[in-house]
Amino acid sequence: MIEADTHNPDEPFHLDDLQVGQRFTSRTHVIDEAQIKAFARQFDPQPFHLDDEAAKRTIFAGLAASGWHTAAITMRLLVETGLPLAGGIIGAGGELAWPKPTRPGDTLQVESEVVEITPSRSRPDRGTATVRSLTRNQRNEVVQELRAKLIVSRRKGQSACDAT
Amino acid sequence: MIEADTHNPDEPFHLDDLQVGQRFTSRTHVIDEAQIKAFARQFDPQPFHLDDEAAKRTIFAGLAASGWHTAAITMRLLVETGLPLAGGIIGAGGELAWPKPTRPGDTLQVESEVVEITPSRSRPDRGTATVRSLTRNQRNEVVQELRAKLIVSRRKGQSACDAT
Repeated sequence: MIEADTHNPDEPFHLDDLQVGQRFTSRTHVIDEAQIKAFARQFDPQPFHLDDEAAKRTIFAGLAASGWHTAAITMRLLVETGLPLAGGIIGAGGELAWPKPTRPGDTLQVESEVVEITPSRSRPDRGTATVRSLTRNQRNEVVQELRAKLIVSRRKGQSACDAT
Repeated sequence: MIEADTHNPDEPFHLDDLQVGQRFTSRTHVIDEAQIKAFARQFDPQPFHLDDEAAKRTIFAGLAASGWHTAAITMRLLVETGLPLAGGIIGAGGELAWPKPTRPGDTLQVESEVVEITPSRSRPDRGTATVRSLTRNQRNEVVQELRAKLIVSRRKGQSACDAT
């Protein structure tokens, strides 16, 4: 039996409102050299993230953002506009890949797709959604692929029903 | 044939110096509430990372660091003291899990173990090392498990030999 879609588009999504194949697109973020170096100084102080000249002589062949910086910007985009989940975006973990480096001047945007939805057996108020988020630059190249396991709240009515 | 270990302990490790089962331990880092909130304001602005009172009413039941903050601190510890690799720590991706939240006042430390070493077939100057890094708090609880695929340089002599 297919249930009617009762989700109000202005409200954040509960687990019960999600569907496999559903997509969300974030706003964009422009990353510049100052941001790349500031993040690197704090969390990833390596020459290819800090020093333009030294970076040219590394595997990156030029200044590149820390992968963790790309991940952090992706999270900001998801939280603000990219994935409106009730209860917030709470990750239990996931898989990450950085197929290309993020460069100064890149415009990043995140497209997410719901790939799996699993209501919790033991906790009727929540479940797990697996969401694949691709972070692309302005040349449409994927700079990060994240397959995250998120803990998502269920609707109150739904959970009460399940709990009986 | 087992080769003699010719690695000088004062020098960073090339792929050829690594062995499966080898372990590295980082220094410690104390995370406080100010750091947690500063990171969250910039990259993960959600109530459970920003507001002590609001956090109590969430799944975290109190202020917790963003998982990406735990990941970024882990990277800092690896870069500075935790994993001395020639050419730096360059991740192609990996798997992440956050089994417990990082809390204000936690003392974090990273223990890493080499789990797989794969010389590149096409690039004689490098290879891939899979490294499992556990980030623990002062109660010895694992707050992050990272299984990272790292691109590691080979020794010059070694690679010249392979290239023939």
